[in-house]
Amino acid sequence: MHHLSEEMQACIEQCLKCYATCLSMASGHCLEAGGEHVEPKHFRLMLACAEMCRASAHLMLLGSPQHRQSCAACAEICRECAEDCERVGDMEACVAACRACAESCRAMAA
Amino acid sequence: MHHLSEEMQACIEQCLKCYATCLSMASGHCLEAGGEHVEPKHFRLMLACAEMCRASAHLMLLGSPQHRQSCAACAEICRECAEDCERVGDMEACVAACRACAESCRAMAA
Amino acid sequence: MHHLSEEMQACIEQCLKCYATCLSMASGHCLEAGGEHVEPKHFRLMLACAEMCRASAHLMLLGSPQHRQSCAACAEICRECAEDCERVGDMEACVAACRACAESCRAMAA
Amino acid sequence: MHHLSEEMQACIEQCLKCYATCLSMASGHCLEAGGEHVEPKHFRLMLACAEMCRASAHLMLLGSPQHRQSCAACAEICRECAEDCERVGDMEACVAACRACAESCRAMAA
Repeated sequence: MHHLSEEMQACIEQCLKCYATCLSMASGHCLEAGGEHVEPKHFRLMLACAEMCRASAHLMLLGSPQHRQSCAACAEICRECAEDCERVGDMEACVAACRACAESCRAMAA
Repeated sequence: MHHLSEEMQACIEQCLKCYATCLSMASGHCLEAGGEHVEPKHFRLMLACAEMCRASAHLMLLGSPQHRQSCAACAEICRECAEDCERVGDMEACVAACRACAESCRAMAA
Repeated sequence: MHHLSEEMQACIEQCLKCYATCLSMASGHCLEAGGEHVEPKHFRLMLACAEMCRASAHLMLLGSPQHRQSCAACAEICRECAEDCERVGDMEACVAACRACAESCRAMAA
Repeated sequence: MHHLSEEMQACIEQCLKCYATCLSMASGHCLEAGGEHVEPKHFRLMLACAEMCRASAHLMLLGSPQHRQSCAACAEICRECAEDCERVGDMEACVAACRACAESCRAMAA
């Protein structure tokens, strides 16, 4: 990844971290906790956020200028996921990862 | 997929078809042809388009309302990929799949 | 995909169909139904099966001889997913897609 | 990811690192270098390895016991990719990431 700018390398790392956090918390925490954690709206958003982060990391790893489009979409979805995880509660790691990724993606999309 | 609207099912199919066409043509046609077909800008766009189509299909399969963001990004990337495949030439199947997917995604993003 | 053998094209289609069926039923049916449908073991297996089908389709679309490894893994995971969906019940579309994909992948792995 | 074993967390990191290294080197190094670096066999193996690493990380993040199947496939594909990158030359980062990932996946598959 050393041919990519430092800012882009940092955004790739935020995206992969947010992907890993959302997916592992959905599967390892939400499915075990049940209740509000598996309400369809919340759970789908977690999985959608994981996928969008993964795709944005992929376009940046490719070095494709089209990462601007995916990062813009990713920033918005991460923002919504952070809000929803805060609403549900007991999802601090996810809130933090989504916020950091949203900020980084917003900068990359500009 | 029967709980999803017919329009969304059709867009999922366009996205998966465009994903499969871009990836298999990049690997099976462009790598064999060489020359302009493996110029970095073109080849990266093919792989970026494949990934974005895959991600948009994923969000629609999840039934996530956030597919609007991914479909907007996908419509734009497919449009650029169709144009670039037309420029390079001998990529008709890819041009057609990208155009159809761009149109379908644009409607889903609205 | 026309440069790929007919058998491989058919297996790619089975994998993409099984991916789409598992993911959309997990999100659109299991999350709505609740109860046994969101027990962690079952839900994780649905998502794992979707991912493995997606990856196997990807390797075949690339025309990579390494699809033998991914198809062998995919055949086994689809077999387990079909069994578990039968146990939980009311998942006929998933059982059928997993069985067909398992059989097709087993043949491609040989 | 804190509910997963330390060994599994380490393997997830190796898989994501190998995915990122293979994909970014294929796109940022091989496409620029041309020649042997874009010979179909080599380039497809790089992309296949990236995808299989991504899928194995995914199954481990889900906490799915089926990661045994994907890690077994991944270990074998990473071994082949390391060898092929060594043959082509000037791919040290990829050789190292593939070797480390193969070893880690082999242990997780056992």
